[in-house]
Amino acid sequence: MATQGQVITCKAAVAYEANKPLVIEDVQVAPPQAGEVRIKILYTALCHTDAYTWSGKDPEGLFPCILGHEAAGIVESVGEGVKDVQPGDHVIPCYQAECRECKFCKSGKTNLCGKVRSATGVGVMMNDRKSRFSVNGKPIYHFMGTSTFSQYTVVHDVSVAKIDPKAPLDKVCLLGCGVPTGLGAVWNTAKVEPGSNVAIFGLGTVGLAVAEGAKTAGASRIIGVDIDSNKYETAKKFGVNEFVNPKEHSKPIQEVIVDLTDGGVDYSFECIGNVSVMRAALECCHKGWGTSVIVGVAASGQEISTRPFQLVTGRVWKGTAFGGFKSRTQVPWLVEKYMNKEIKVDEYITHNLTLGEINEAFHLLHGGSCLRCVLSCE
Amino acid sequence: MATQGQVITCKAAVAYEANKPLVIEDVQVAPPQAGEVRIKILYTALCHTDAYTWSGKDPEGLFPCILGHEAAGIVESVGEGVKDVQPGDHVIPCYQAECRECKFCKSGKTNLCGKVRSATGVGVMMNDRKSRFSVNGKPIYHFMGTSTFSQYTVVHDVSVAKIDPKAPLDKVCLLGCGVPTGLGAVWNTAKVEPGSNVAIFGLGTVGLAVAEGAKTAGASRIIGVDIDSNKYETAKKFGVNEFVNPKEHSKPIQEVIVDLTDGGVDYSFECIGNVSVMRAALECCHKGWGTSVIVGVAASGQEISTRPFQLVTGRVWKGTAFGGFKSRTQVPWLVEKYMNKEIKVDEYITHNLTLGEINEAFHLLHGGSCLRCVLSCE
Ligand SMILES: NC(=O)c1ccc[n+]([C@@H]2O[C@H](COP(=O)([O-])OP(=O)(O)OC[C@H]3O[C@@H](n4cnc5c(N)ncnc54)[C@H](O)[C@@H]3O)[C@@H](O)[C@H]2O)c1
Ligand SMILES: NC(=O)c1ccc[n+]([C@@H]2O[C@H](COP(=O)([O-])OP(=O)(O)OC[C@H]3O[C@@H](n4cnc5c(N)ncnc54)[C@H](O)[C@@H]3O)[C@@H](O)[C@H]2O)c1
Ligand SMILES: [Zn+2]
Ligand SMILES: [Zn+2]
Ligand SMILES: [Zn+2]
Ligand SMILES: [Zn+2]
Repeated sequence: MATQGQVITCKAAVAYEANKPLVIEDVQVAPPQAGEVRIKILYTALCHTDAYTWSGKDPEGLFPCILGHEAAGIVESVGEGVKDVQPGDHVIPCYQAECRECKFCKSGKTNLCGKVRSATGVGVMMNDRKSRFSVNGKPIYHFMGTSTFSQYTVVHDVSVAKIDPKAPLDKVCLLGCGVPTGLGAVWNTAKVEPGSNVAIFGLGTVGLAVAEGAKTAGASRIIGVDIDSNKYETAKKFGVNEFVNPKEHSKPIQEVIVDLTDGGVDYSFECIGNVSVMRAALECCHKGWGTSVIVGVAASGQEISTRPFQLVTGRVWKGTAFGGFKSRTQVPWLVEKYMNKEIKVDEYITHNLTLGEINEAFHLLHGGSCLRCVLSCE
Repeated sequence: MATQGQVITCKAAVAYEANKPLVIEDVQVAPPQAGEVRIKILYTALCHTDAYTWSGKDPEGLFPCILGHEAAGIVESVGEGVKDVQPGDHVIPCYQAECRECKFCKSGKTNLCGKVRSATGVGVMMNDRKSRFSVNGKPIYHFMGTSTFSQYTVVHDVSVAKIDPKAPLDKVCLLGCGVPTGLGAVWNTAKVEPGSNVAIFGLGTVGLAVAEGAKTAGASRIIGVDIDSNKYETAKKFGVNEFVNPKEHSKPIQEVIVDLTDGGVDYSFECIGNVSVMRAALECCHKGWGTSVIVGVAASGQEISTRPFQLVTGRVWKGTAFGGFKSRTQVPWLVEKYMNKEIKVDEYITHNLTLGEINEAFHLLHGGSCLRCVLSCE
């Protein structure tokens, strides 16, 4: 390719400061070094983790940076030693790496990978612990090892899932974060069995994906819980068959659900990021076996609590990151499931804008009617 | 038998008031009603749950009552409809009932049984919601459905495990609570695999039984944690092969253990009842898969807390009651294992006294050198 080995200048949305509008800039993207992949991002969606870091509440957030982690694109070039992808491959960048070599990857017990964390956690690449992004020579930090709010990005090879080139990138970009998180929370983390009763707290994209996961797992009662009653209508399409608005009850929501289900649900999922709701989600589980999975990400420094008796009497408290999916191995499999119409993706996309309209997209994300807004990057 | 159908007058240790010495009294024990079993208790041990309720800190504690729940004896007579045991059977009373009929028993997911809880929780029997104990016509409450600090007690038939008559009752009485709790926490609740690293907080009877369970499960590193360094010597016999005294470190104990184990242990067990230690036990677990089991019983009203990130990054928080063992089914199996020398029991018995010396026994229980004190009731 003509651009291979060259610095590429392209448009990206740069977050210069917390809470200030992103700036669409000409950014220089350095060529990939050993073990790195440069990707032309075609579509990127926005997720609440982007908004959280942008808000300045994330103490690990570094500025200036290029946010974004739910995207799809085409490999432009690869650095030395990269074997699993080549220019032209259709890919989804994965903030959850999978190296298949580290203690975590080899444990067979988790999808967390330790290989590149020490770099992605501080906004740089492993090779030289520097950024590949700059504006007029000033470095711009990477974000989550993905930085997809850019026409081109550089990621570690362990963070790239190669997918079916027939898959529509404007849709499957969603398989980079929210949808797999919800599905996997049910399939991998909770392992919901047929006939189970399930409660889902928060019916955004993640909660709806939990609902779909629960439905395909054969759950019988799928109780949606949201403070916005408008969410029920859409949620029905994803499998929610009962709805509770905590605002319409004077009793604590855990008691409402325990009463509704003769002792509590078999599985509950917190898909909001609110520590009091995390407690309610645990406590609405059935004594003896109820399992609660934390999916939402709480603000830094906040803590969950409960009486230990809740656990001693058999409830289990868990959490999930990217739904427990091994990214490079299973994202392509999720793409196949989508192509075979076994899982929904299109239904989560409520808005389509361009990268240039990203500030409007963030605004939409905070409104109640937006699930996912997909930005075209060209 | 001569006593069948008659009120039996025998000696029992009555707790008239919180924190006041128990009184050895002549107590009247009514005959068993339908579904009840009257047992001649030969040996009873003391457990911290007895001491906790006696201390008055248990808000559900009722006085006057007859405490005790770790014992062995012989069936004296049975009420109408009792099929599984008959007079002369050697038995262990089980505070954790097993009816094999309720939602819990049939779930296949828990050893908690709901059948008689509504009565045992308030110190009476199901049949007439009254006590079978009285002193001069004044009722004395039951405790945990067992009340073994008495020469005779009446329990529900779902709370009696029939055991091998060749088993020495002065030893296997321990299989009524502490030892199964520790073994089962490892075998049933955590399901420790060969090669695992384990941390055990608190090396009393329960912690030592966890160590033995971990050793038989093939754990490689078994790290004992206790504020009393004298505990290590005994603990070695039960499988503990490393020891940490939190008092000898300036860093929080979770950090000490994470450093010691290159990232944390695979399994941890809290066997003290201290909510800050419960947090440390969770947080010393390895990211991605570490599982922490709460075994200790905290004082009423106390709460555990942690950052949800601990769970989102793959740690699991659980608890256990009676080690997850189905009492009537598995206590006899544990007795067999003891008879076959597959599990220790004798080694936990540090003191032998008589029922009349029970106040001294409680005193011993609070000293550091006592694991279990077995009282002979004759
Ligand atoms: N663990 C992971 O790997 C992972 C991955 C992606 C997203 N997340 C997190 O998942 C959470 C959900 O993401 P999303 O995109 O679905 O968010 P969203 O904002 O679209 O959905 C949240 C929903 O919760 C509802 N809600 C808010 N407060 C509530 C309350 N007190 N009780 C009941 N409902 C309430 C809102 O009305 C909304 O419908 C976020 O915290 C996000 O950061 C986690
Ligand atoms: N979940 C259940 O079914 C169940 C059943 C039986 C007992 N229990 C509970 O298990 C717990 C342990 O019982 P036990 O009989 O072994 O008690 P124990 O008092 O004999 O042992 C406790 C040990 O913890 C140590 N310890 C105290 N504070 C400590 C600290 N901060 N850090 C480290 N070590 C500390 C003590 O030195 C002692 O060795 C109790 O809370 C008891 O009520 C629970
Ligand atoms: Zn996300
Ligand atoms: Zn790895
Ligand atoms: Zn006990
Ligand atoms: Zn039962």
